[in-house]
Amino acid sequence: MHPKTILKILSILILILSLFMIVPAVVALIYKEYNAFYSFIETIIFTMMISILAIVLLKKAKEATLSTKDGFLLVTFGWFVAALVGSIPFYISGCIPSYVDAFFETISGFSTTGASILNDIESLPKSMLFWRSLTHWLGGMGIIVLTVAILPLMGIGGLQLIKAEMPGPAVDKISPRIADNAKYLWLIYIVLTIAETILLMYGNMNLFDALTHTFGTVATGGFSTKDSSIQYFDSPYIETVVTIFMLLAGINFMMHYSFVTGRFKTILKNSEIKVYLSIFILATFFITFNMNREMYIDVWESLRLASFQAASILTTTGYVSMDYQRWPYFAQGVLFMLMFVGGCSGSTAGGIKVIRITMLLKQAVNEMKYLLHPMGIFTLKANKHTVKKDIVYAISGFFFLYIAIALLLALIVSTSGVSLSTSLSSALAILGNIGPGFGNVGPASNYYFYPDYVKWALSFGMLAGRLEIYTVLVIFTPFFWKK
Amino acid sequence: MHPKTILKILSILILILSLFMIVPAVVALIYKEYNAFYSFIETIIFTMMISILAIVLLKKAKEATLSTKDGFLLVTFGWFVAALVGSIPFYISGCIPSYVDAFFETISGFSTTGASILNDIESLPKSMLFWRSLTHWLGGMGIIVLTVAILPLMGIGGLQLIKAEMPGPAVDKISPRIADNAKYLWLIYIVLTIAETILLMYGNMNLFDALTHTFGTVATGGFSTKDSSIQYFDSPYIETVVTIFMLLAGINFMMHYSFVTGRFKTILKNSEIKVYLSIFILATFFITFNMNREMYIDVWESLRLASFQAASILTTTGYVSMDYQRWPYFAQGVLFMLMFVGGCSGSTAGGIKVIRITMLLKQAVNEMKYLLHPMGIFTLKANKHTVKKDIVYAISGFFFLYIAIALLLALIVSTSGVSLSTSLSSALAILGNIGPGFGNVGPASNYYFYPDYVKWALSFGMLAGRLEIYTVLVIFTPFFWKK
Repeated sequence: MHPKTILKILSILILILSLFMIVPAVVALIYKEYNAFYSFIETIIFTMMISILAIVLLKKAKEATLSTKDGFLLVTFGWFVAALVGSIPFYISGCIPSYVDAFFETISGFSTTGASILNDIESLPKSMLFWRSLTHWLGGMGIIVLTVAILPLMGIGGLQLIKAEMPGPAVDKISPRIADNAKYLWLIYIVLTIAETILLMYGNMNLFDALTHTFGTVATGGFSTKDSSIQYFDSPYIETVVTIFMLLAGINFMMHYSFVTGRFKTILKNSEIKVYLSIFILATFFITFNMNREMYIDVWESLRLASFQAASILTTTGYVSMDYQRWPYFAQGVLFMLMFVGGCSGSTAGGIKVIRITMLLKQAVNEMKYLLHPMGIFTLKANKHTVKKDIVYAISGFFFLYIAIALLLALIVSTSGVSLSTSLSSALAILGNIGPGFGNVGPASNYYFYPDYVKWALSFGMLAGRLEIYTVLVIFTPFFWKK
Repeated sequence: MHPKTILKILSILILILSLFMIVPAVVALIYKEYNAFYSFIETIIFTMMISILAIVLLKKAKEATLSTKDGFLLVTFGWFVAALVGSIPFYISGCIPSYVDAFFETISGFSTTGASILNDIESLPKSMLFWRSLTHWLGGMGIIVLTVAILPLMGIGGLQLIKAEMPGPAVDKISPRIADNAKYLWLIYIVLTIAETILLMYGNMNLFDALTHTFGTVATGGFSTKDSSIQYFDSPYIETVVTIFMLLAGINFMMHYSFVTGRFKTILKNSEIKVYLSIFILATFFITFNMNREMYIDVWESLRLASFQAASILTTTGYVSMDYQRWPYFAQGVLFMLMFVGGCSGSTAGGIKVIRITMLLKQAVNEMKYLLHPMGIFTLKANKHTVKKDIVYAISGFFFLYIAIALLLALIVSTSGVSLSTSLSSALAILGNIGPGFGNVGPASNYYFYPDYVKWALSFGMLAGRLEIYTVLVIFTPFFWKK
């Protein structure tokens, strides 16, 4: 391990973060929010001093090649430190009086979860809300590079599939090209951001609302600047735009790259997108049918509400266009199932991910074939390429850990005296980086009421879920620390 | 496939079943329940005629060696046909006026689930209650042979571990020794039955109650002859006896065999028992602590209630000594987690089974080791024997299918308009062959209120869960029917 190199990179990270904080500081000036302005400036100066000092002190540290272990530490602490620094303005400005709450809100932002502890969102200074939404956008940027370029190379839970099966910008050779790839992918991310912002403004949103909601969409985060989320705007046009961009953000960014570079065959061959869209269409269909039949809502109105919410939960965004806890139980059940799926790998979405679910299903079918033909040879294919057994193993392990951690998290949550559906859906919504769940953490409520220790546990859950479980968990194993 | 041979064996099966029905007929005579008596007699005569006719007609069918496919059909249809025949007395006597309900209750019996549709259990004729409990006992007999001797040889979801790792009566060679092994295992089952009956009678239960509750215990079924289950007897002694026998019934019967034959080393080497008992002790400890602290119940009283309910849910029995929905949510959460575990393999218990959970956890840990040392070789061990990768694959597939089917079942249940916790816990309690769940299917309620299509779906779930998922599911695949 190379602690000095890790510290150096983390210092650079928070230096960049403090530079990004200039943006909400400017927003504070525009809206004449001087208390917020000073909070940002103080944080920026403090963070810059610390990071520059660290960089200077560590200057003499040899440029070491990072080991895999360094990688895990770097990624996990990178997100952790970002939340630590990012939460300072909320806390010192007094906007979020409890530090635990400020940290929860910030890690929820960077992990693109969107679970909130704010009871009165609209009462916050606009610059604070801007920063809050910006954490989503920055977190999304980090995740794209991480899941497309870094984690697959580290062999995390079957994400190698992205690398092995999806020709996009070459990601099969590490380091020298990561920066290149990151550029391309970020460019797509920025184009999506600009496009959605313009489209939302065309629907009569002001620039502030358009930008913040775009951040929440393209990062599949879900923070809104309105207490009633997207429902506030009461506009079918806006809902449609957001639905489309949530779905786009839930697709592997390598596919966007293929699209831009005209490699349509690659997209057509990609089975994950097909399954992803099929799940979306199926879920929308079931919910629409159910709402129309049991709530007597017009088919088109039902379709609008259903497609929005299905896209929001499937892509783990968490925006709300209607309190779905008022829907019939079957429609809620469909949303609950979507909580287990998540978006495509290599997107900003969280959850188990479509490709893993597909692989697990195929493997289960293969197991049945083996029962009938124990001597047979049945291979697993993804996008017409044979998948190595090792990868399937990694996916199986991931799935088990995901379910086990969700249940353990639910158990910890239940100690605070909430019902089964609340504790279970809290755990799933947090681990899957979705945000709203059911029961007391439904779309009309938030995570404010939980005691501090539950908020810490959930913060850990957001991080673990965001970093594909293994990355965080492996650090807690005794063999990680053996020489 | 050999349909004639299958039909012949099924005919013999229902012939044996009809002979067993003589017992409740005698019970009916003793209690002078003539309507019930005639219902049994009619069923016996009808079933005997059908089966003997079939056996005679199929006499000329060649004695064929059964293929694996035949095995799957035989096992699945065996349980199905047993429920079909077993439900007749309930229906024609008018005790259960709806046939769907009668079938549900009977498959719940044979699958040792213990989920009931009876609103007023105590109003039923004693002979009917006796038959209801006897279905548990017979189902348990079937399961022991099935999971110890037949399914492992068919390669079902990692059950090969029983065969490979646990020397008991030799089960590594099929057919000739199955009958021998069955004899030994059944002997243990009968000894357990007699022992518990005597111990319960010693606690002032009458023979009828002692026998029926023993059937429910040793088969880990959970049907009681009292509306309030074991709580009715309000006796710490009885609860302790039942707790101990539930735990015994949840242990691999090969271990009981090893115990009887003095092979204590085999038992000490068995890791599944250790994990199983550890889970039980841990769950009991947490619940006791939680009840004592939040409900101000005396420690010993808490311990008594906690150990009973933890054993009941872990072993998938489903007896109740207190409505646990009145417990604090954390205690309920512990029970909810136990619903995912189940007893040991080769026992009468259902659920995912301790050995599978252990293997999955070990595999997940190995995956983390691979992350750090991609070229390393990390083997999986069970009872100090290396486990083949194929077996781990089968277990992973099983786990995925188990969770997927539970969620699908919950979705179907939710169409009837019940809440998330009700639909989810119904699915888990049914698939795990437990019986009571949470919400509207809690210990103080039952499955009566569900519409017929939900009852059919749940009946399917009980069968699938009981026969280790694969056995039933494989029949529904297109490749099963290909020549």
